[in-house]
Order: sequence, then structure tokens, then C-alpha cells
Amino acid sequence: MKQKLSIIKIGGNVIENETELNKFLDSFSAMQGPKILVHGGGKLATQIAEKLGIESKLVGGRRITDEEGLKVITMVYGGLANKNIVAQLQARGANAIGLSGADGNTIRAVKRPVREIDYGFAGDVEEVNAGAIDKLLQADFVPVFCAITHNKEGQLLNTNADTIASEVAIGMSGKYDTTLYYCFEKKGVLMDISDETSVVKHLEPKNYQELLEKKIIADGMLPKLENCFHALHKNVGKVCIGDLDMLNPNATLFTTITL
Amino acid sequence: MKQKLSIIKIGGNVIENETELNKFLDSFSAMQGPKILVHGGGKLATQIAEKLGIESKLVGGRRITDEEGLKVITMVYGGLANKNIVAQLQARGANAIGLSGADGNTIRAVKRPVREIDYGFAGDVEEVNAGAIDKLLQADFVPVFCAITHNKEGQLLNTNADTIASEVAIGMSGKYDTTLYYCFEKKGVLMDISDETSVVKHLEPKNYQELLEKKIIADGMLPKLENCFHALHKNVGKVCIGDLDMLNPNATLFTTITL
Repeated sequence: MKQKLSIIKIGGNVIENETELNKFLDSFSAMQGPKILVHGGGKLATQIAEKLGIESKLVGGRRITDEEGLKVITMVYGGLANKNIVAQLQARGANAIGLSGADGNTIRAVKRPVREIDYGFAGDVEEVNAGAIDKLLQADFVPVFCAITHNKEGQLLNTNADTIASEVAIGMSGKYDTTLYYCFEKKGVLMDISDETSVVKHLEPKNYQELLEKKIIADGMLPKLENCFHALHKNVGKVCIGDLDMLNPNATLFTTITL
Repeated sequence: MKQKLSIIKIGGNVIENETELNKFLDSFSAMQGPKILVHGGGKLATQIAEKLGIESKLVGGRRITDEEGLKVITMVYGGLANKNIVAQLQARGANAIGLSGADGNTIRAVKRPVREIDYGFAGDVEEVNAGAIDKLLQADFVPVFCAITHNKEGQLLNTNADTIASEVAIGMSGKYDTTLYYCFEKKGVLMDISDETSVVKHLEPKNYQELLEKKIIADGMLPKLENCFHALHKNVGKVCIGDLDMLNPNATLFTTITL
């Protein structure tokens, strides 16, 4: 039987709020077995960019990463956020080691090809180096990834944290029985967006189709769930979506997704 | 016989100059056997701090690291400089992994006690975790340290890069035959400060004393060399001081220091 491995992704809503971050770090440190954290950087990068007089460029709601923007992201995600999370985890006894995809060549990406839009230094993941990540796990380190990859030719690339989490989970599924946790603001997939208790506890292809047809799953949840099913089709064991309480061993109110 | 391990420290003069940095990264990647890089951040941190409107505070020529200053250092040393060096080394085939002392709890420090001066978040190294660093070396990673440590209680600390290099070399000397390389602007210890060819090729306690008495070694070189002899007394095998050419396998014009 394969050993279990948990991959947890947290977003800006956790990173930006000290109380939430501390709550998360407590739960994460208490989780048993090998684990990997993936974090975004949230609004911090935008704030620092503003202070430095660098304009954030958005096209169709998506951020364009120009050279100056990439510098800010490297400073804020790779430096400020990552190193502080690592230090906080070390204080809680978790043997965290902070990584970008360049470190140990753990995640190689390609610069997104220019078609209608030039996204600049945005990376699409090409290869997760499961062997390198496994060496770190075997040496009892807890990898903490920020949302930066590289192209193995010296170029860092800004990469979506949700994608990093799913690609790392997929990459590790050859050796491990993987569970991918997406922490966000809601308690999971909701039947009624205004009712936090209306959580769909178990989602699988059949009821997912029904919810899609009834337009209960729409907007921002759609790409998120497509990403989850993509991971499951690529041998990730289970995906869980919910808020921070989901990481509590007695938690029941969150969405579990399986095939 | 112990395996050889090279620890190389580069300073601001290399980091700040793209040509010099590329030259260094070429030489460093070509070096055989296990190796560790330690880098400072140079003026980049001061420049970013200025842009962010953060004043650099100096007392008696020494920088005071307040909370805002520490954030800048974490962004610039831990993020921008470290991740770019790692990506550039990966492009050259060196399996670099970027670290602060918090990562893998590799270097624990204490906040410098307040006596006459409060240096703020400056760290004095207490313990190098040779076991953790060795796990990375054994897994064929090339550790790349920035000049940041932690206190294992969640606090990052700004720490002198020369000290990090010597303490890491000392810590690894239990298992390895260590050589510590300090790269700086000069070709080594000079008999005549205005003549770059007047390099003292071999320094040992006897001629060191003579050079001290003749005041040939003074000013900035004094603490640097005290640091070198401290490392040698703590079982570091050899210390080399010189410019980037020193790393060339055929180099002859640099200072080797032994006991």
C-alpha cells in the first residue's frame, strides 16, 4: 500500500490575515505524515508594487507579469511570504523548507506562448520533478512552495498556485496515495451560495454533472472544480475543498471530491 | 580520508554587477565536488528600501535592522537575489537549492542582545545544523544561502554573510575536509594596497603577526582575517581570499590561509 501524502494549498485570504494564518499554521503543523504546502501571495504583491510605483497590468481580469512585476513577485512570494511561513512552521516544530520551482529544479515551466494576449513572465507547468521532491520528503523536510517556477534556462516564471498544487499532487501520485486540499473562503461547494451550511459533502462525476446543469456550479467555482477533476483523472487519490476548519481532524463540513 | 567540501562566499560587488555575477556563476557551476554558496545582497536592499520610502539607519557605520528593514532584506536577499541565483545556477546544470537559515532549520541564531546599541533584528549565529545541510548535500543539492537566519521561535534575523560562511564551514568540518573561499574585490591580502600583484600567497599565524605589526594588515582586512583564523582554529581546513579568478582551476594569484 502506498504511503499517504497531503498537499495543501492556501490562498491570499489566509496569507493576508495574521489570525487566519496562525490558525492555519497550527493545523498544518499538527497534520500527521508527509505533507507539502503551496501558497499564493495575495494582495501583498500588489501593495508592494504600488509602493514601488509599479503599475499592475490586467487584461481580461488576468494579471500580466512584466519584468518589474516579476521582480516584485519574486521578492514578495519567494522572499517575504515564503520565508516567514517557513520560520513560523519551524517554530511549531514542522521542518519546513521553502522552495520555488527553481530550487532543486522541482518544477519546470514554459513561458506562456503569446497568442491573443502576451501574459509576460507567466509560466505553464511542464514537469514536476517528483524525484527531487521525494528526496526532500525522505529527508524529513516539509516542502513549502511559493507560486514561482522556472524554465531551467535561468528565467523565473509567475505560476498559478492552484495549478502548482494540482501538478505537484499529480506528480507525487506515482509513489504516494495523495490527497489534495484546497483551502478557500467557503466551507466547500455550496448548494445555496448564501448558506454556508449547504455544503455538498461528496462530489463525484455524476452529481457534478447535475450541479453543472442546474447552474449551481458556475463562475469562479467552475475552473477550480475542473482543476480538481483533472487532478483526479491523473491519479490524485482525493481532493478536498473547504475553509481552514477542514484541516481539523474532526471536521465534517467540507466537500470531498473523488471519481 | 574526509570528502572535500567547498564553501564560497560572494559579496555585493558580485551580486550587483551582472557581468561579474555571470562570470562567478560559470566558475561556481564548474567546480567539482560538493559545494555551498553564501551570498550577501549588496546595495540592492538599500535601493529597494529607498524606493519604498524606508530609511536605512546606521549607528557607528553599522546598519540597524528595524521591522521594515527586515522585510526589505527578506524580500531582496531571500527572494530576488536568492531565487535568481538559483535559477541561473540551474540553467548551468548546478542543482542549486536556495535557503535561509530558517529553511530546514539549517542556521539558528539569537537576536543580538541590546547593550550600548540596539541593532534590531540582527542575528548572531548559535548553531549550524550540519545534519540538515548534509542531508541536502547527500541528496546532490547545492545549498545557496542568503544572509538570513531565524531564532527557531518564528523570528527571521539579518545576519552577516561572512559569518554565515565561516559558521557553515566550521559546522561542516566535522564530516568534511572544508575549504572556505571569500571572494572580494582584491586579489587577496596585499603587501602594497596600490599594487594588485603584491599578493601574499600564503598566510599563516607567523607571517600574519609580522604583517599586523608592520600595519600592512589594517582597517577592513582585520576583522575579515580574524574571522578566517577563527574558522581555521575551529577545524576548517583552509581559507582562500581573492577575487573571482581564484575559482579558476589554474589560478595562482590569491591568498591561502592555514594554521
